[in-house]
Amino acid sequence: MDANTAFVIDTFFAIFAFVLIIFMVPGFAMLEAGLVRTKNVSSVLMMNTMIYAFASMAFLLIGYSIAFGAFGSDSMSKWAAFLFQMAFVGKVINIMSGGVSERVRILPLAIFAIIMSGFLYPLVVNVTWGADLLAGTILDLNMYDLAGSTVIHSTGGWALLAAILIIGARKGRYAKDGGVRVIPASNIPLVTLGAFLLWIGWFGFNGGSVGSISSVESANAVALTILNTNTAGLSGAIIVGIMMQLKYGKLDITMILNGALGGLVAITAGPDLYNIYQPILIGAIGGLLVVFAVPLFDKLKLDDPVGALSVHLVNGIWGTLAVGIFVESISVMDQLKGILVVAIFAFASSYIVLFIINKIIPLRPEKDVETEGLDVNECGLEAYPEFKRSF
Amino acid sequence: MDANTAFVIDTFFAIFAFVLIIFMVPGFAMLEAGLVRTKNVSSVLMMNTMIYAFASMAFLLIGYSIAFGAFGSDSMSKWAAFLFQMAFVGKVINIMSGGVSERVRILPLAIFAIIMSGFLYPLVVNVTWGADLLAGTILDLNMYDLAGSTVIHSTGGWALLAAILIIGARKGRYAKDGGVRVIPASNIPLVTLGAFLLWIGWFGFNGGSVGSISSVESANAVALTILNTNTAGLSGAIIVGIMMQLKYGKLDITMILNGALGGLVAITAGPDLYNIYQPILIGAIGGLLVVFAVPLFDKLKLDDPVGALSVHLVNGIWGTLAVGIFVESISVMDQLKGILVVAIFAFASSYIVLFIINKIIPLRPEKDVETEGLDVNECGLEAYPEFKRSF
Amino acid sequence: MDANTAFVIDTFFAIFAFVLIIFMVPGFAMLEAGLVRTKNVSSVLMMNTMIYAFASMAFLLIGYSIAFGAFGSDSMSKWAAFLFQMAFVGKVINIMSGGVSERVRILPLAIFAIIMSGFLYPLVVNVTWGADLLAGTILDLNMYDLAGSTVIHSTGGWALLAAILIIGARKGRYAKDGGVRVIPASNIPLVTLGAFLLWIGWFGFNGGSVGSISSVESANAVALTILNTNTAGLSGAIIVGIMMQLKYGKLDITMILNGALGGLVAITAGPDLYNIYQPILIGAIGGLLVVFAVPLFDKLKLDDPVGALSVHLVNGIWGTLAVGIFVESISVMDQLKGILVVAIFAFASSYIVLFIINKIIPLRPEKDVETEGLDVNECGLEAYPEFKRSF
Repeated sequence: MDANTAFVIDTFFAIFAFVLIIFMVPGFAMLEAGLVRTKNVSSVLMMNTMIYAFASMAFLLIGYSIAFGAFGSDSMSKWAAFLFQMAFVGKVINIMSGGVSERVRILPLAIFAIIMSGFLYPLVVNVTWGADLLAGTILDLNMYDLAGSTVIHSTGGWALLAAILIIGARKGRYAKDGGVRVIPASNIPLVTLGAFLLWIGWFGFNGGSVGSISSVESANAVALTILNTNTAGLSGAIIVGIMMQLKYGKLDITMILNGALGGLVAITAGPDLYNIYQPILIGAIGGLLVVFAVPLFDKLKLDDPVGALSVHLVNGIWGTLAVGIFVESISVMDQLKGILVVAIFAFASSYIVLFIINKIIPLRPEKDVETEGLDVNECGLEAYPEFKRSF
Repeated sequence: MDANTAFVIDTFFAIFAFVLIIFMVPGFAMLEAGLVRTKNVSSVLMMNTMIYAFASMAFLLIGYSIAFGAFGSDSMSKWAAFLFQMAFVGKVINIMSGGVSERVRILPLAIFAIIMSGFLYPLVVNVTWGADLLAGTILDLNMYDLAGSTVIHSTGGWALLAAILIIGARKGRYAKDGGVRVIPASNIPLVTLGAFLLWIGWFGFNGGSVGSISSVESANAVALTILNTNTAGLSGAIIVGIMMQLKYGKLDITMILNGALGGLVAITAGPDLYNIYQPILIGAIGGLLVVFAVPLFDKLKLDDPVGALSVHLVNGIWGTLAVGIFVESISVMDQLKGILVVAIFAFASSYIVLFIINKIIPLRPEKDVETEGLDVNECGLEAYPEFKRSF
Repeated sequence: MDANTAFVIDTFFAIFAFVLIIFMVPGFAMLEAGLVRTKNVSSVLMMNTMIYAFASMAFLLIGYSIAFGAFGSDSMSKWAAFLFQMAFVGKVINIMSGGVSERVRILPLAIFAIIMSGFLYPLVVNVTWGADLLAGTILDLNMYDLAGSTVIHSTGGWALLAAILIIGARKGRYAKDGGVRVIPASNIPLVTLGAFLLWIGWFGFNGGSVGSISSVESANAVALTILNTNTAGLSGAIIVGIMMQLKYGKLDITMILNGALGGLVAITAGPDLYNIYQPILIGAIGGLLVVFAVPLFDKLKLDDPVGALSVHLVNGIWGTLAVGIFVESISVMDQLKGILVVAIFAFASSYIVLFIINKIIPLRPEKDVETEGLDVNECGLEAYPEFKRSF
């Protein structure tokens, strides 16, 4: 194939992948809107909307240059290359914002979204996928992370951990005697819709990260990547389903969907390197990690209404390690080094930024506001004003 | 175009078609969640999730080899060829599970999903689109069925008929005096969303079934296929709309959307062979068949909350026949033979498997569970816990 | 690249763009279903479904030939070229129907949809993008309007203005003392989902309007178009968010989403001609126009439950002018002339047709029906029958 044809096809493919990832915007929005209580639904939707807007704009104006040096690409339209990378940014903040739902204000979070997308996340990308400021130093990273188990998911997860430590748990979530009050998801169809939109977006996320489809080899790599991505999601759902059936005889759909998402995060570092059976194991472990991590975080009183720490942070780490474990040519130590360097930077920088923001504009709303629900105070409207509440 | 470029483009196109079909997973889930009562919504969503997971996994591990012999394709990435076929599988079970909603347990249905996707459906594919075990025998099939009016929709429909015969109608659906109690859909926006996601998925289903887009002829065939697919859906909706207006002066949107889906099923056997006007008639007949079949099945006390028998089974048959009727080069007798052989195999094998499963793990929940709703017992949660019910 | 390869790639790309635009069907449906009161939700969904069906069918049978002369295209499959154009049609009527929600009957609106899609809109297309009946006359238009700020959005907006003038405001919307009664949106997650499906559809709408992706130049133009489209949407959301925060300290998500949509409409006339920073300004002005136009139309007692006049009409005009203002090679006078000619034709012809329809079949339901809600009378069912209303 001549270079012009390859340029055209790879541009088209990057646009296709970009569009799939943008389905994750309503995906995250619906998932989180379904998981929180009705009194906080508009606020969560507002948060998702403003994150997409502010994070993408900050990445356009500042972040992309920090990450990659300048707009440019030889093998496809530089605008398509930008769009594909831009689609990633909001996801990092979504991971973080979802986990502090129901007790965070929009304004300070929007400010954090700008700083994270304009500076912090681009620095992570710079030293992993991008221009590489650390090249030649002792911190030079050789981690293999195709589509961001560490770069996206753990980075968002560490920022979330920082945010939870600063903001604290939802009012009434943990009793003084150590009990955990279950706060049920308010709208299961939205949760399911959101999870499947995310799943579909993942095909663009991971498939597009191969970077090209214009040769026989790269076309095979893209197709294998999408196949393996899907398999890990299936496997995560199945293992959690089996565990639920054996342990409780009841299938909690929110846990099973989180199991699928956990499998999807776990596969994301190396879906192009595995054979078609390894993702079954990697995804299954991903699902199990969600099941075990969710109660563990509750024990640690790290309140996370959507399970984002378990899905994204834990499985981001697991997925990055898995490439080292399952693929001979990849060094586990290189993977570990990448995980640690990103962890320290992402957690520390997020903590500091959130800490400072919190001093100026408190992240947490007043107690009354939290009790009444954020929608009325933050958005001035209810999500379902005509529906009578059952309590 | 050289062979490598064609390989790349056809791989990309198969991936595009695959992704569109996967939108049918939330499509079916939303459609069915909207059509059932709120007390069974989580259960229906769980069912759709587990079917996607188990059916796809069984097809990966067993079914695909039974259908096609082995992973492989000369004209595109073998992984893309697999993904496209895998996307079909869950649909067959979705058709079946939707029709027994509100009175079926998840565990035995998941077992059936594995057997159907791993063995029964692959055998149907084998003798129609695949390796062809029956070649040279008296049962050798020459049916034309581009995207599965028979192979997908009727097969799912026959399995559903078997399931309804074994499981029976929902409690209270049919009075002893022969009256039919109307059980209204609980969430019309979800029904509409689901129907349009299915409609969009159909473009990938039928368009992708052309198998290639990399020549001028095949590009024209793909575009014509998608155009004709859409036209039949439009026509199905329009004819049902006109009938409703004339007969009742009221437009029941669930019936009109089912009319569109009926038209879409009816066109699926031969959208590449028709001119651009024939789909208007084929889709209109498809819509009318839904309108007439729905009360007929109720008369036969075959309870089907989502109208799947009318949409998929009746129109699967009609669509397969239509190719023989409208296309000169296709023999009606060959179409009939295909319909019958698949009917007998799909119905009998599903019936036997469901019968055996039912003896070991009853398909139907206890009466109390059905009355209370499956959500609490099967999933341990309600779909809309904060919304007060109006009764 | 040889002509056959270009034919294949441009056909594939047109199909991709078509599919994205069809996501706007559920997009508009969900947006409007979320914005109206629960008693009118089924009716709004029915309207959207029938508009897609009737408008597309009328365009297939009549409209396309009026607009473009005949089915045909040299550079891609003529069926793909048709599908892409067909995807536009329903949007014009959607814009109009949304703005008269909650007090319009389906039957007369369906008749208008047929006339508008079969005749009126195709005439607008004819003199702008199509065969050009006015060529050589004094009315010959040289307006630049890549994807329809005027041709689609203003045309729909003028038809809506005509409809509002004929139908009037919703009962109780405007008090005699000049006060405006706020009627809150009933389902914010649906509004958000709908807005993002529209946003995603816009990538196909504007990107596909470049008409080709098969050369390096056109691939760059497509990618730039999609980037600029997105940026204007981001900017519209951000400016409205900032205004809301400063003015009220509360973020009304419906207004912010409409700000994004306003930015998207504004960019639509020339996204391929701007640099990557101009859309920030164009979109911001688009968002501001929505904020200022919404109360203005209420002052004029032009009742528009979804803000379509502000989003589509006002920004359609602004977007068309913007190309003349920001792009040196485009004449502002040519843009103004195009805006005016289309305005006069679209408004006058819609007004006349709606006026005549209204004499034969009243557009507005009886007062009791409006009070009770259209769902029961027009559709024979409620949208959420099991959910208890809070009043």
